[in-house]
Formats: sequence, C-alpha cells, structure tokens
Amino acid sequence: MNKKPKVAIVMGSDSDFPVLKTTIKTLKKFEVEVEVHVISAHRTPEKAKEFAQNAEANGIDVIIAAAGKAAHLPGVLAAFTTLPVIGLPIKSSTLDGLDSLLSIVQMPKGVPVATVAIDGADNAALLAVQMLSLAHEELRTKLKAFKTDMEKEVQEKDAMIKEEVLKI
Amino acid sequence: MNKKPKVAIVMGSDSDFPVLKTTIKTLKKFEVEVEVHVISAHRTPEKAKEFAQNAEANGIDVIIAAAGKAAHLPGVLAAFTTLPVIGLPIKSSTLDGLDSLLSIVQMPKGVPVATVAIDGADNAALLAVQMLSLAHEELRTKLKAFKTDMEKEVQEKDAMIKEEVLKI
Amino acid sequence: MNKKPKVAIVMGSDSDFPVLKTTIKTLKKFEVEVEVHVISAHRTPEKAKEFAQNAEANGIDVIIAAAGKAAHLPGVLAAFTTLPVIGLPIKSSTLDGLDSLLSIVQMPKGVPVATVAIDGADNAALLAVQMLSLAHEELRTKLKAFKTDMEKEVQEKDAMIKEEVLKI
Amino acid sequence: MNKKPKVAIVMGSDSDFPVLKTTIKTLKKFEVEVEVHVISAHRTPEKAKEFAQNAEANGIDVIIAAAGKAAHLPGVLAAFTTLPVIGLPIKSSTLDGLDSLLSIVQMPKGVPVATVAIDGADNAALLAVQMLSLAHEELRTKLKAFKTDMEKEVQEKDAMIKEEVLKI
Amino acid sequence: MNKKPKVAIVMGSDSDFPVLKTTIKTLKKFEVEVEVHVISAHRTPEKAKEFAQNAEANGIDVIIAAAGKAAHLPGVLAAFTTLPVIGLPIKSSTLDGLDSLLSIVQMPKGVPVATVAIDGADNAALLAVQMLSLAHEELRTKLKAFKTDMEKEVQEKDAMIKEEVLKI
Amino acid sequence: MNKKPKVAIVMGSDSDFPVLKTTIKTLKKFEVEVEVHVISAHRTPEKAKEFAQNAEANGIDVIIAAAGKAAHLPGVLAAFTTLPVIGLPIKSSTLDGLDSLLSIVQMPKGVPVATVAIDGADNAALLAVQMLSLAHEELRTKLKAFKTDMEKEVQEKDAMIKEEVLKI
Amino acid sequence: MNKKPKVAIVMGSDSDFPVLKTTIKTLKKFEVEVEVHVISAHRTPEKAKEFAQNAEANGIDVIIAAAGKAAHLPGVLAAFTTLPVIGLPIKSSTLDGLDSLLSIVQMPKGVPVATVAIDGADNAALLAVQMLSLAHEELRTKLKAFKTDMEKEVQEKDAMIKEEVLKI
Amino acid sequence: MNKKPKVAIVMGSDSDFPVLKTTIKTLKKFEVEVEVHVISAHRTPEKAKEFAQNAEANGIDVIIAAAGKAAHLPGVLAAFTTLPVIGLPIKSSTLDGLDSLLSIVQMPKGVPVATVAIDGADNAALLAVQMLSLAHEELRTKLKAFKTDMEKEVQEKDAMIKEEVLKI
Repeated sequence: MNKKPKVAIVMGSDSDFPVLKTTIKTLKKFEVEVEVHVISAHRTPEKAKEFAQNAEANGIDVIIAAAGKAAHLPGVLAAFTTLPVIGLPIKSSTLDGLDSLLSIVQMPKGVPVATVAIDGADNAALLAVQMLSLAHEELRTKLKAFKTDMEKEVQEKDAMIKEEVLKI
Repeated sequence: MNKKPKVAIVMGSDSDFPVLKTTIKTLKKFEVEVEVHVISAHRTPEKAKEFAQNAEANGIDVIIAAAGKAAHLPGVLAAFTTLPVIGLPIKSSTLDGLDSLLSIVQMPKGVPVATVAIDGADNAALLAVQMLSLAHEELRTKLKAFKTDMEKEVQEKDAMIKEEVLKI
Repeated sequence: MNKKPKVAIVMGSDSDFPVLKTTIKTLKKFEVEVEVHVISAHRTPEKAKEFAQNAEANGIDVIIAAAGKAAHLPGVLAAFTTLPVIGLPIKSSTLDGLDSLLSIVQMPKGVPVATVAIDGADNAALLAVQMLSLAHEELRTKLKAFKTDMEKEVQEKDAMIKEEVLKI
Repeated sequence: MNKKPKVAIVMGSDSDFPVLKTTIKTLKKFEVEVEVHVISAHRTPEKAKEFAQNAEANGIDVIIAAAGKAAHLPGVLAAFTTLPVIGLPIKSSTLDGLDSLLSIVQMPKGVPVATVAIDGADNAALLAVQMLSLAHEELRTKLKAFKTDMEKEVQEKDAMIKEEVLKI
Repeated sequence: MNKKPKVAIVMGSDSDFPVLKTTIKTLKKFEVEVEVHVISAHRTPEKAKEFAQNAEANGIDVIIAAAGKAAHLPGVLAAFTTLPVIGLPIKSSTLDGLDSLLSIVQMPKGVPVATVAIDGADNAALLAVQMLSLAHEELRTKLKAFKTDMEKEVQEKDAMIKEEVLKI
Repeated sequence: MNKKPKVAIVMGSDSDFPVLKTTIKTLKKFEVEVEVHVISAHRTPEKAKEFAQNAEANGIDVIIAAAGKAAHLPGVLAAFTTLPVIGLPIKSSTLDGLDSLLSIVQMPKGVPVATVAIDGADNAALLAVQMLSLAHEELRTKLKAFKTDMEKEVQEKDAMIKEEVLKI
Repeated sequence: MNKKPKVAIVMGSDSDFPVLKTTIKTLKKFEVEVEVHVISAHRTPEKAKEFAQNAEANGIDVIIAAAGKAAHLPGVLAAFTTLPVIGLPIKSSTLDGLDSLLSIVQMPKGVPVATVAIDGADNAALLAVQMLSLAHEELRTKLKAFKTDMEKEVQEKDAMIKEEVLKI
Repeated sequence: MNKKPKVAIVMGSDSDFPVLKTTIKTLKKFEVEVEVHVISAHRTPEKAKEFAQNAEANGIDVIIAAAGKAAHLPGVLAAFTTLPVIGLPIKSSTLDGLDSLLSIVQMPKGVPVATVAIDGADNAALLAVQMLSLAHEELRTKLKAFKTDMEKEVQEKDAMIKEEVLKI
C-alpha cells in the first residue's frame, strides 16, 4: 500500500463542472491524487468502457461519477470495473434532480453504485476519502481532524446566531 | 428494401419475460421477424456493446429494450447504434415503475430513446411496426387493419357493457 | 422511396415555440423537410383530426407533437394516423413537467407515442431522423457522422475541463 | 326545462366498468336518466368526436368521462362540446392513479374538465347531480335529503364505533 | 329561471388575488354576476360556514374556491351547501402545487369538489359558465362563440409561428 | 391541574377504526382518559364545529384527528379550537397516503396541526401523552419508563436476531 | 407550574435562521422564553445528545427543531428526551422540501415528532404555545386573542380585495 | 493489513431481517467477517452512539445500516464514526420506500452515507466488499470472479429464454 491514493472524477457533461469543483477541492485538501474526465456514457460510450476497464491498472482506487437526467454514467462505469463507484446525481432543468437520483441509486442486483445526495459534491469526496482510509491510515487521521473542524465550525455558527437572536 | 423487417427484443433480466411475451406475439402477428436476447447493461456490458454495434450489420431494423429499476439498457444500446431504440420501462417491487420510466425517458441530448408506457408491452411492438412501416408499405396496410380491428373491439365492448348496464 | 423525407412538428401552443426551435434546426441540419403547425388538441380539435388523418397523404413520414400540462396532443394525433408520433413533453409553470410527461408516455394499449425527455427538443428531432433512416440510407450515414461529431465535442470538452482543473 | 335531466357516462375501457357501477347506481337513485358508452379517445376517436358533438342535441346535459393511465378521454370530449365534462381518473396497474389524475386535471386554458378523486365514482355522480340541480329544483331537494342521510349514517357509525371502543 | 346567474369567488388568502383576476374577468366577459370574498377555512371558519349555508339563499348558483397548501376551503364550503363547488388549487412556495391539488381533488365519498388545474384561473370561470349554461341558454350560445374565438386565436398563432419558422 | 388528562380521538370514517385501535390502547396504557368519535369534516360539518368549539369546555386537553384522502378533519377541528390537534394521516386505496399526509401537514399560517407518520397510530398517542406531560408530571415519569421498555425490547430483538444469524 | 414556559429552538444549520426568525418573533409575542441553538445532528452529534438529555433539567418545555434535506435533527433530539419535539422541515435547493418533510414526519413507532408544514415557521411557534397552554392558562387566553386577531385580519383583507375587485 | 476484513450490519428493526439475510449470505460468500445488530437510532440512541464510536476500535471496517420510513440510522451512525457507512433503504407499508430512500441519501454536507437501492440487499454487501478490496487484494480477485459468474448466469438465462421464445 505504498502508492498514493488516487480518485478519478468523471462527469457526464462539462456543465456539471461547477458542482464538481467542490469535490476536487475537498479531495485535494486531503492530499488525494485526483484526475478529472468528461466522459459521456451515451456520447462517448467506448471511452467510458475503456476508462473503467483500465481504471484499476491506471492506479485509480475509487471513481466518482456525476451525471444529470437519466444518469447512466455511474452504473455504466460500475459495469466495467470492480472498483467502488460513487454516484453523484446532478440536478438539471426539470424534475428537480429526482430523475438523476433514481437513475443512479436504483441499480439492479450485482452492480452497486454508492449514491450520495443530489448535488452533494462535498460528500462524494468525503465518501471517497472514507473508502480510501480503509487502506490509508493517514486519511483516517485527517478525517477525524476534519470531523473536529466541522464541529468547531458549527459551534462558531451557534455563537454567531445566538448574537443575532439578541438583535430580534 | 427487399429484406424482411426485423426487430430485436432485449430484456435486462429474464424476470421481464412475462411482460415481453405480449410484445413478441404482437410483432409476430404483423409477420415481423423477431429475435430475443437477455442482455444486462450492467452484468454483461460487453455483450450489450457488441450486440448494439453489430445490430445493423445483423439485419436488425429496430431494437426494443426492456428494463426495470435504474433501467440503463435502452440508453446503453442507443449509445452504440444509430438504429431507433424503443425503451420499455418495467415495474419492479418498489416505486411503482417511476424509477424505470425516468431512467429511460430522461435521456440527455444526442441519444434519444423512444419511450412507451410502464409495462406497455403491446405499444412497444406497435411503435416498432409503425417505424418499420416507413420502409415497408405492407406494414402500414396491416396497421390500418389493426386500427380498424381495435375500433371494432371497442364497439363490441360498448355493446357488451350496455347489456350489463341493463342488469343494474 | 424517392420522395424526400418529411417531418411535421405540431405544437399545442405558440408558447412551446422557443423549445421547438432546436428541433427544427436539428432536422434542417439533416436536410429533412419540415413543416410546422400550431394545433391544439382541445381548442382546434377538428384541425388536429384533419391534420392527422391527412398527414400520410400529405407526404409526412413522422410527426413530432409537443405539449405541456395535460398534454393530449401527441395521443390525439396518434389516434388518427398510423404514422409514428413522437411526443415531446414541455415543462410548464407547475409540477416541473411531470404532468406533461405522464400524459404523453402512459398511453393505453393500441396507440403508442414515442416519448422523449421533458424539453428534449434535440432528441425529438434525432429520433425522427433515426426512424426515417429505416427508409433513407443517406440519413443513417449522416447519423453516424453526427455521432462521431458528438464524440469529438465531448473530447474537446474533456480537454477544456482538464485545463480548468489545473487552475484549481 | 321540462325535459328529464340526462347524464352520459363514457368509459375509455370496459375494464373501468366495475368502478362505474357505483356512479350509475347513484345517478339512478336521483332518478337521473343515464346512458352508458365505451368509447376510447385513442381507439375510437371518430366515435368520441361524434358522441361529444351530438351530445347536446341528444339531450345530454352532463358528461362523466372515466379513464386510466394517460387519460385523454375527458379532455377530448370537452374539446368537442360546451357541456360540462366531469373527469373521473381510474387507478391502473402502475403509478397508483397519479398519471390518470394529472392527465385529466391539468387541462390547458380554455377547455376545463371538472375532476374528482381517483376512483371517486360516487362523487362523479353527485357532482353531476349538483350541476343538474341548477336547472332542476327537485334535484336540489334530493341532494339536501342525501346530505341529511349521510349525516345520519355517520352518526350511526359514530354510535357503532363507540360500542366497539368499550370492548377494547 | 329569470334571475341573472351569479358566481361567488372565494379565496383563502388575499395572496391568491393575482391569480383570480383572470377568473373574475372571464366571468364578467360572459356577463355573469360575480361576488368576491376572502374567507379562510381555518382563520375564519364561522364565516366560511355562514357563507356556504346562505349561498343558495343569497342567489349564488356556483361557488369557485381557490386555496393553496393544505387547501381545505373548497371542501369545507362544499360540506355546507349543495351548490356545485369548483376547486382551484393555487401553487405556493413549496411542492409546486401538488399539496394543494391533492387536498382539493381527493375529496372523500359524498362531498365532491369539481377540481381544475393548478393555477387554472380561466378554466375555473369557464367551468362555472358551463354549469350555469344548463339553466341559461344564452350562456351556451356565448360558450360556443368563445370556442370559435379560441379556434381563431390558435389559427392566428399558427400563421404567426409559420412566419417565424421561415426566419430560422 | 387536578383533573385527569383527557384525549379525544376523532376519525373521519369508521373505516379508520382498525388503525386507531392502537392509538386507544396506547393511551389507556398511560391511564389517559379517552373519548372516541366518528365525525366527518364533510358529511357532519356542524358536528365537527360543535365538537371542536366545546372540546375545551368538555375537559378535553388534546385532540387526535385521523383521516384519509383529502384529509381536512384535523385542520377543520383546529380552526375551531386552541387546543393542540394531532393529525394522523390514514393510507387509503390510492396514492399510498401521500394525499392525506399533504392535506394534513401543509396547514397554512396561523392554524397548526401536529402531524405524525402515515398510519402512525402509536405515535399519535405518544405525542398526546408528551403534550399532556407538560401539565402532568406523572405522565412524564411513565414516558421515561416507556422509553426504557422500548430500549429493552430492541435489546431483546437484538439478541433474538443474533441467534437467527447463527443459523444462516 | 410557577416557572415561565420555555421553548428551545434548534436549527441544523445557520442557513435555516432566516426562516426561524418568524418562529422566534411569534414566541416572543406570546411572552414565552426562547433559547436558540445551532446544533447539527450529524456534525455535532454529541452536543445534540447532551442538549436533548439535559433539556428537561434546563427548564425547557418544548423543543422546536428545524432542518433541511435528510432532516434527522428532530428525530435525533426526540430519541434522547420525553419532551414534545416539533419538527419544522426546511426547503433546500433540491426536491422542494419533500425530502425534509418525509425525513421528519415518517418517524417509526415509539418516538413521535410533531411535524408542521415545510417552512411553516409561524405554525411551529403556535403549536408550541398550544402545547404550553395545557399547563399555562394565560397562554390559552392569548391564543384566543390571537385567533380573534387573525379573524379580523382576514376580514380586513376581504374588505380590501372587495375594493380591488371594483377596479377590474 | 493482516486482520480479516469485518463488516457490521445494523438494522433499525428486527422486521428488516428478512431483507438483510441476503446481505449476510453475500458477505459470507466473500469470506468477510460479519457481525449483526439490531440498534434503533430512536429507541436505543445511546447504543447507536456507542456502537458507532467503538466500531473502529472493534475492528469493523465498513458499516451497513438498514432502516425504513424516516430512516435516520445510517446518518446517525455516520455522525459518530469516520468509517464508511452504507445505507440500505427498506420499503415499508406506505410510500413505497421513497421516504426511506430520501431520508438516507439526502445527507447534508460533511457526513456522507453511501446509499444503495431500496431493498438492495445484495448490492449493500457487494459495495462493502468493493470498499474492503481497497485494502484486501484477495477480495478484488473474488469480485472479478463474481462478475464473471454473473455474466455466465445472464448468458444461461439468455439461452433459457431463447428456448421459451420458440414455444410462443
């Protein structure tokens, strides 16, 4: 387990990029190596297949796949690899993300996709880090620090709101 | 256009077969050649790709793809062919078919799937025949006869119900 | 099969026109003849009937019908013709397009409508071209070129995003 | 206003008949003349048009139209008449009646359908009687008696349940 | 039947007024007498009861009740009268009108509400006129003229869009 | 606060009684006085009003109102009293309880209903007891014992399942 | 019952504060003591537990917990206390509040949460006051005055709208 | 990484056990150590906290948490640990699993839950194995064999269905 952990982020369309910036930043904060691809399950299906088939050989440990509407990308990648695939449903202009959530999470028996919330860009990254920490003790340590930081942040917000309340 | 028209029916799981029997029977009634496959977009993705890539060369004119839950099969086949793909959403044990409908119909720009009703086995076949009739005049004639038969059937039901009403 | 392929685009309301511009442009790119009508299933039902009954005689091969809310137009036209009818659900001010999707796709046995995604204007056109290519080899060739172009476009987006990632 | 009030019940399929029996019985209890038809908006569209266009001339005052799935029948009839049309959504095997409810109630501007609850067979009849009572005083009187009866029935149920409670 | 037909429009909140302006204008176009009230089923329940109980005596023929969220107003009024009540669901800030639609349309056995589309302000008025025309022949005549006007309007839009298409 | 706490359970229909038996039993376990009524918001609206207006004078502390479909009963009672009203949505034959949940919980500003889960008969009772414990210390003590019992029950189930697992 | 009634408002995120201002103001209008906290069920779970376990000892009578998305906060607090917990679902950027409503209201047997409408900030406060009035007669009196004020407000709106109508 | 991989399966109620049997069997097939618990987030919250806080120290690598209705268990466990938590939504008697899916998947920022399909018992196990294979090469090998087996199984079903088709 000497190699640095690596996550591939794959988006079905470049329009998903604004949401995914957060995912990239969060992964970098944990010093996880990140590679980013635009691959469409429907418009570049060959590339999707090749990417997923070679992902393990290319040193990728976890795949994060983001897509909207009839979001097949996470499932299609999962079909061609045994690496864990995290599905990130993207909200598009109709149906408020429900189509993309159901298309990703309701995977049939045999090929799971680890689904996070609609537009849940942070959590996709954190879930990847949690998975990687099974093999990388140092990430577990960082996750614990991250949890402590979150706690502090909430406490600061608590103090801030308590001051706001006094003004009402 | 001398060749006999041919439709391939692909189901994601053998559990979809009871619904698809109607599709097969309807196509046979129109004397359309039918071939039937069980191909899973997720469990046999290579076969899905090969099937779709070779469909045209194998003399297939229209593909009907049926699947439940996160139903990716129709979209995955459509990614690898320019033949028209008809998507038939299958109702499974949760969410009453909504997951499968949205996973099939909400295809992103560039790769359409012609979606019919949840468990709409007849209509999948009839839509295929309508498409084929663009190149096969004799199917158009049969469709017109079918429409007339349907009309008669409704009229018979009308007469039957009118008798039932007298008993109330 | 000497005649040029022709698609009729019918919209239930002139307010659907902005969405349908894309459909028209895509069809024109494929050099398919297009005619466009505003016909309401509910406000001009006679015209809907006449249009659908005469569509075949008028040289129309495929009908694309777009409508919002309780979108009956595609089904009503399909009732009066054996031509394939493509249903394009339009999102309106309430329910995010779900009403229009279900009103179009859930057609009862005997009268199919080939439904595409909510506001899926491109895919309505592409599905029409796929259908027409059953009788027009040259359209199949163009569809293959279109698929290759889409692939290239995704690859360019992939390169572009990879550069964006370096800036993060 | 000498003529006896008359309601036409139209169902899209004979499979809707079990639900509609209640509608018929309720109308008969109010001594309203009833005629019953099986007419499919999609399979017998000409008959639908003719029926609706001639309904007024045939002495019909109110139309009750019942249908399931993409339930276009009420809207299609309403397009061809100025008589009030009551839409009764029927629950079918998928989506729990939601498709049929939305297909009936979400009518676009200009052509209303008076929608009642999914499988609301009684209320379709009662709504018809309420409408008819605008021109038929005697029906208003009967409706008031009906309301009193319902009240009594609830009171009896109240007494009955109070006895049941004692046994707990 | 000498008296002029009268419709009462009741809204649950003054915030529903912008939607209801259309209802009022449409009724006035048909020269139907209109009275307008803000009555809340929950905040002024006594007034709701009194209004509904006296509606018939006050010469009201049809009630249109508009409300949002858990929209009880139409059902509550219907409980206290045998006049037909038209329910108009208003879209509010959450759930896109679905809550209000279901709260109005899913009325239990015995007390119907004639429900129109979410924010369907025109159709509420037109449905009222259709009901009134059962007793007022002159309204039937006007409805037929209205239908003809709508038809013309669609034809004008058709011509207009056909010109727009030439510019593409 | 010498008087014994009393809860009124009101159901919109006697068909709701099987679900409510649990509510009654749970309240009796806490030695809370219970009275039970069948009162329909729509079929016996006067009785609903009278019941709610007199509830406080009749020594009732909390009202539990159960109803299905367009479930107006809890809101209607809440309109006529300042006592807390607990709304219990009942699942009926269509829409899986969603209609009844939204009709109860989405109450407009000014008149709250404390809503529990669809068919959540136990929780309606427990919520009533929690409210009553604000004035009745002994109920708080019983609630704590109940919480401990639940905990034990889960632990027993845990042990039981652990044995079942050994058999796999 | 000498102690002043006290309500704790807990929000899962400081972004919920704008909605909760109304809750605070309404409680203050009733002269109920209010304390406000930002506590996340997921980011500060220890604090959530401690807060709930000590709430009774800290003189809190009722807890109002507001949260969005997978809104666990109300249920988590309810797990650690026997005080009544009011759940206030907050609408977030996807799914229009449905996720948060279902996550709060569908509590399993044994641990109720008194749920109010999505973003129903006023009603959360009013429900708390109704509960408190079980032990505090003076609050009941204020609630009655509040009900009268609401009634007047609606009557003023009624008058205002009636003037607006004259201008149409 | 000498220690044998271990997965804890936690269910919110013993009624979830029938669904989870598949999860246990699948994990055992991969020779993963399994421990099973019934822990309710609401009825045994202390135990939930303790379990999650000590999970890592107890040698657990991945947690699978199954729950129905307002399914808080996965999120509550995730709040107290940095181990990856897989959420398995269980369908209960109302809302067809939608409540439980949304309560699990829509987790707020900072605390992800890896969600699988409603009642997706196999996939919960397989996802756990995929995660564990990041640290356990031998599991990756087994997953590849499993994928090959699935492929074969689909091919056998394909052959079987092809024989069935001949009988039609």
